[in-house]
Amino acid sequence: MLTRIDHIGIACFDLDRTVEFYRATYGFEVFHSEVNEEQGVREAMLKINETSDGGASYLQLLEPTREDSAVGKWLAKNGEGVHHIAFGTADVDADAAEIGGKGVRVLYEEPRRGSMGSRITFLHPKDCHGVLTELVTSAPVESSEH
Amino acid sequence: MLTRIDHIGIACFDLDRTVEFYRATYGFEVFHSEVNEEQGVREAMLKINETSDGGASYLQLLEPTREDSAVGKWLAKNGEGVHHIAFGTADVDADAAEIGGKGVRVLYEEPRRGSMGSRITFLHPKDCHGVLTELVTSAPVESSEH
Repeated sequence: MLTRIDHIGIACFDLDRTVEFYRATYGFEVFHSEVNEEQGVREAMLKINETSDGGASYLQLLEPTREDSAVGKWLAKNGEGVHHIAFGTADVDADAAEIGGKGVRVLYEEPRRGSMGSRITFLHPKDCHGVLTELVTSAPVESSEH
Repeated sequence: MLTRIDHIGIACFDLDRTVEFYRATYGFEVFHSEVNEEQGVREAMLKINETSDGGASYLQLLEPTREDSAVGKWLAKNGEGVHHIAFGTADVDADAAEIGGKGVRVLYEEPRRGSMGSRITFLHPKDCHGVLTELVTSAPVESSEH
């Protein structure tokens, strides 16, 4: 069961400049940052609020580490903007199986590693009214920045 | 101060079909629906979780009521997908003034009426790394559906 908006994924050309925009404009701080070589992104998670299921909602700022990554190709086509949205669940495997059984294409056979040790999968945007949709099960985490 | 992800605004061609997709696929239910003639949209708010500032996070599904509305023009150009993101604040007037003072273009001189009696304004996406960004101060609300 999906119990929160986990994050909004935003693709950008320059992560440091975009982090600085969100800090200077809104006061949002980096909670965690990492490079995910499998996804081909350098990313920063800005924690915005905690959620009623015991999790939190983040902005995830994404800069491609290579042009042929999914985010790199998306940026070249669309320019900067919202790349995907993510819902949090306690059991990404069960939700992916259930949703896949309804005819929505699940993009990974098995969930992969996402931000902060989470396990993630994606749903095909053409099956989701144009919205690239991620499902996330978080790992217990501590901030790497504070 | 912005204290939550208030909603993700998603533009769609057919509100009823898109509401049904979110219900059938994820179990999300309509918390509130309305027509906003000023914005030129028919919309449904799906409440996803409550937030640590005492508010909540929603998906806002938007169908244009006329082709020349902002959402209608956006849909004709982009197709279905994420149209904007919105941050919640206790004082949209103060935040809009502060953010505008930093050189980000605020699209309304005064906040206008948003979903469920809220007061809203928008920031220019070209000043926000490609993201159309809304600021929202909620009114106290009850669901119109439950």
